[in-house]
Amino acid sequence: MPFIRGPSDLKNLDFSQLDCLADEIRGVIVKTVMRNGGHLASNLGVVELTIAIHRVFESPNDKIVWDVGHQCYAHKLLTGRTERFAALRQKGGLSGFPKRSESVHDAFGTGHASTSISAALGLLAGERQQGRDTRAVAVIGDGALTGGLAYEALSHAGQLELPLIVILNDNRMSIEPNVGSLSRYLSRLSVKSYYQTFRRTIDRTVKKIPHIGDWIFNGIVRLKRAVKAVFYTDNFFVDLGFEYVGPVDGHNIRRLEEVLRDVRAHKRPVVVHVITRKGKGNDKAENDPSMFHGVEGARPLPDTPGGEFAGTFTQAFASAITAAARRDSRVVAITAAMEKGAGLSSFKKEFPDRFFDVGIAEEHAVTFAAGLAAAGMRPVAAIYATFMQRAVDQVIHDVALQNLPVIFAVDRAGFVGGDGETHQGIFDLSLFRAIPNLSVLCPATGLELTLMLDWAFGQDGPTLIRYPKAEAIRDEACPPLELGRGVYRHQGEAANPDGADSQADICIAFSGGLQEEADSAARILQERGISCALYNLRFVKPVDEAFLREQLDRFNVFVIAEEGCALGSFAEFAAAFAHTHGCRAKVVPLTAPAGFPPHATRAELLEAARLSARQIAAVCGGIDEGYSCST
Amino acid sequence: MPFIRGPSDLKNLDFSQLDCLADEIRGVIVKTVMRNGGHLASNLGVVELTIAIHRVFESPNDKIVWDVGHQCYAHKLLTGRTERFAALRQKGGLSGFPKRSESVHDAFGTGHASTSISAALGLLAGERQQGRDTRAVAVIGDGALTGGLAYEALSHAGQLELPLIVILNDNRMSIEPNVGSLSRYLSRLSVKSYYQTFRRTIDRTVKKIPHIGDWIFNGIVRLKRAVKAVFYTDNFFVDLGFEYVGPVDGHNIRRLEEVLRDVRAHKRPVVVHVITRKGKGNDKAENDPSMFHGVEGARPLPDTPGGEFAGTFTQAFASAITAAARRDSRVVAITAAMEKGAGLSSFKKEFPDRFFDVGIAEEHAVTFAAGLAAAGMRPVAAIYATFMQRAVDQVIHDVALQNLPVIFAVDRAGFVGGDGETHQGIFDLSLFRAIPNLSVLCPATGLELTLMLDWAFGQDGPTLIRYPKAEAIRDEACPPLELGRGVYRHQGEAANPDGADSQADICIAFSGGLQEEADSAARILQERGISCALYNLRFVKPVDEAFLREQLDRFNVFVIAEEGCALGSFAEFAAAFAHTHGCRAKVVPLTAPAGFPPHATRAELLEAARLSARQIAAVCGGIDEGYSCST
Repeated sequence: MPFIRGPSDLKNLDFSQLDCLADEIRGVIVKTVMRNGGHLASNLGVVELTIAIHRVFESPNDKIVWDVGHQCYAHKLLTGRTERFAALRQKGGLSGFPKRSESVHDAFGTGHASTSISAALGLLAGERQQGRDTRAVAVIGDGALTGGLAYEALSHAGQLELPLIVILNDNRMSIEPNVGSLSRYLSRLSVKSYYQTFRRTIDRTVKKIPHIGDWIFNGIVRLKRAVKAVFYTDNFFVDLGFEYVGPVDGHNIRRLEEVLRDVRAHKRPVVVHVITRKGKGNDKAENDPSMFHGVEGARPLPDTPGGEFAGTFTQAFASAITAAARRDSRVVAITAAMEKGAGLSSFKKEFPDRFFDVGIAEEHAVTFAAGLAAAGMRPVAAIYATFMQRAVDQVIHDVALQNLPVIFAVDRAGFVGGDGETHQGIFDLSLFRAIPNLSVLCPATGLELTLMLDWAFGQDGPTLIRYPKAEAIRDEACPPLELGRGVYRHQGEAANPDGADSQADICIAFSGGLQEEADSAARILQERGISCALYNLRFVKPVDEAFLREQLDRFNVFVIAEEGCALGSFAEFAAAFAHTHGCRAKVVPLTAPAGFPPHATRAELLEAARLSARQIAAVCGGIDEGYSCST
Repeated sequence: MPFIRGPSDLKNLDFSQLDCLADEIRGVIVKTVMRNGGHLASNLGVVELTIAIHRVFESPNDKIVWDVGHQCYAHKLLTGRTERFAALRQKGGLSGFPKRSESVHDAFGTGHASTSISAALGLLAGERQQGRDTRAVAVIGDGALTGGLAYEALSHAGQLELPLIVILNDNRMSIEPNVGSLSRYLSRLSVKSYYQTFRRTIDRTVKKIPHIGDWIFNGIVRLKRAVKAVFYTDNFFVDLGFEYVGPVDGHNIRRLEEVLRDVRAHKRPVVVHVITRKGKGNDKAENDPSMFHGVEGARPLPDTPGGEFAGTFTQAFASAITAAARRDSRVVAITAAMEKGAGLSSFKKEFPDRFFDVGIAEEHAVTFAAGLAAAGMRPVAAIYATFMQRAVDQVIHDVALQNLPVIFAVDRAGFVGGDGETHQGIFDLSLFRAIPNLSVLCPATGLELTLMLDWAFGQDGPTLIRYPKAEAIRDEACPPLELGRGVYRHQGEAANPDGADSQADICIAFSGGLQEEADSAARILQERGISCALYNLRFVKPVDEAFLREQLDRFNVFVIAEEGCALGSFAEFAAAFAHTHGCRAKVVPLTAPAGFPPHATRAELLEAARLSARQIAAVCGGIDEGYSCST
């Protein structure tokens, strides 16, 4: 491995050496992922494909865009990042996704699905505008192909007729086994592979006829196209204006290279359909790629994975929605390729007819849910916070405007750890707080999540419930919800109990997922002789304004800790509210720092954002000691 | 017409009466649209189709969803809204789009494109869950079919196998002549129509054979499917799991009815491909449907249409981008089916190779632009404010995270008038203010827009420039931009000029499009002896905080007028800022009221939002007279 300093070092190897290299790369990937966490199955599936791509194309002049990017490890190892690979996904180390700032070979950063064709087409069009004879390759899985963005891009590419190369990495699953009619369709395409091989052999034979071979061949091609154009079209991709090549065995470097060299010489958009096996070369991952899609590292992590261990918010949601569905036959669940991650496997098992996995298609998930609600159902759309960004208009235009009772169960809200900046769930509060009719709630415990979900089922309009990828703290007695109001965990004690005022000067208000940090901060302060009230916000929206005003008049300082960006936060609203209404309290917002937080553990990110227990306590202690709020 | 009180009244008419009815409906539509403004060509194109649909399906039990909804006028006239139709698109009158709260026959509200298949599928799935034998019909144009959401929904519908009926209303254009390879593809499908007719005749003949006809027919169908499944697929829709019927003449009620009756009895998802002519029956509209897509009413409107008259922001943008493209060969323009509306026709004419209309595909438009920027180009994506809601994740994930210099020219920001609640551009400020790296600017005049666009071309990161669908006020000397700072139009005069303080107590700050209202408000106040400073915000983001602090310390009252929703607004930020930094001024936010503003003229909406000159003056005057800010 160390002898590969860049893609050009690949070019002198023969095929047996390349196969050895593939084995070596797999070894490094397995070792690193088992230690640091990361995507295993998807990366093991494309080792040969990555080698073939870098043998044929000239990165960085040629632009290679990896869709989702959860298959870029071999690419990173082949483009001069072997030594830094050990710190993959760790604070300060390599990102788990392609990143322009990390290497010139990362032509375009990815993380969310279905962007690669648009981006590669833009890169290609831009390069061509500047007179450069660049190639652009989008490597996209069959899962990401269910996203509407990929289709929009295919359609546009077919029209532009630039020589874009789309490599369809068909492994028959995205994160979960793939759904949707396109997936079935791709299988059918594979059946045709013998027919294709036969046709290719004929074509080649004809081409070899001396003198007139090429002429006959071109004639045949043109004739075939003419017939096709009138009577039928070959396949989905051809319909959209692409040439189609495949299917090709994605683990045969020699064959891949042959095909890619042909395709590279092409002057029109082309789809190369490659069949790979997720987890290839690792028995465990190959047999259960869904389980080994995302792997947590060996180190004890504070952000333990959802759905598998007792006590996570995800698990609480799983129990709550299943219980609700047992009581109410109108309850249905929708997810966009996040069945396991969102905790819906048990629901699906118990209510297969009331479970809809729409594939990687968040927009459709939301508008489909709106349709279900309009028909009188009570749909719950379970979508990660970062992916909800993709359905903002659908929430505004299809759900909220019509005030339809769709519930959004938004997991992975807040900091997400190793997946890093593309996946941070820090914008949802700002994006969705602005939308009329939509209630936004943050549960602090599993029990409270259940309470909120049940409350949402009783509403006439839409509700969004957001919670982090984290263990929820132990359930405790949970007072009933009151519309637009939070609840005190404790009121603290007055610094001078003999005074007229019998309560603390400072209140730490927090949104759900931060209860543990807020609790600990209060304990730290208590040890230092500072008593704080502790207020669980519960409702980000709507707000009982009279009640909020009362709370802001009760304290001198009202710290608001929120796991989201500052601009558009509840804390910003509350500070503006205190200003406009002339409340007594000084509101001190504690939110995510400006920018895109990089990958690190959730604990590290909370610390950096001044949202760890220690930091919240430091801020509050500082205030007590004359800390200036105007930082 | 008055004799049609509901769809059931259609059922007793014969075909010649139906043709007369179609003529009558066209007359009403033309008359009303010419007076009130609205969508002409699209509505005239579907009169026969609407009649046929209501003859065959049983609304409201059967669910009919009109994609975009700009073709629902005949539907409104046939479903008991004849009398209210005269007030179409006027304040308090009928909406120009389907609206659940308006009629039980409006099964799902629309406005933005490509939602109908998702919504109809949701409605159908929901109805079936409740044991009702409902039909659901999505009527979608070929333009809206370029949107990725439509494809996501087709793919899911093909998988669910519910008997969803998608009527593809193929008029060969969306708002502008349609682009994209799908459009070419649909034309090719039409060529096959003779072949289809031939096949249908055979099928019918076989069916008529006594006793064994049906059996043979079914055998043939199965055989054909088996052959197809292995060797080729029939077309795009079949690939996605649909049956395909068509093309059918969309102006032949009898033929349409036949086909729809067949299709209604079907047990699987089916696409009916209908060919219509936009503007049918009206020579002008038929010859230039693009011009007659959106028609302004006869009344003088304050919100005159963009691009056609001197002095609009749209026109200023058109000149500015063309001038920039002449200077810099890296400048390219992207739009999503809004070429004329966004003012890009002259750019396209002068730089056809640097102009990209991607069809109704805002997500792709943005990620494609990001790709262009990553290749070193300077892309400008011109997209209306309401449609930018569809590309929030692409702006976050593909543009801002990578800090790519994409410029968003966001027209129709603020209130949009007759198009109403689905099209109001009031969320963009809140949605995009939260996004790191993105600068957000609001020009007050055409000249300032030019200045801002040129500034944006000099940046390393992304910029969003937003302006209303309105005439810009006359250009005047425009001081150069200073990062993060606004500029005073005038400082006002002190109430007591002998005092230490030589300036006004009140400042009216405003974001670009409201300059005219702010100016007039200041004049009204001047006449009443109240002098205000007038401050053009210019930058919503980034903010020069030291400078803002100075301004907030100079006045007692700082009114901020913003044409957007309150939550997440700049005004909210400024109030929070004044609170956190203990500034002298009381910030008084004036923003759009909570909720979705209905259709009305922009002037009426500004008045209702307290953003008209009169209302801004009233607020400021009230403050001077002891007005309480805490309303």
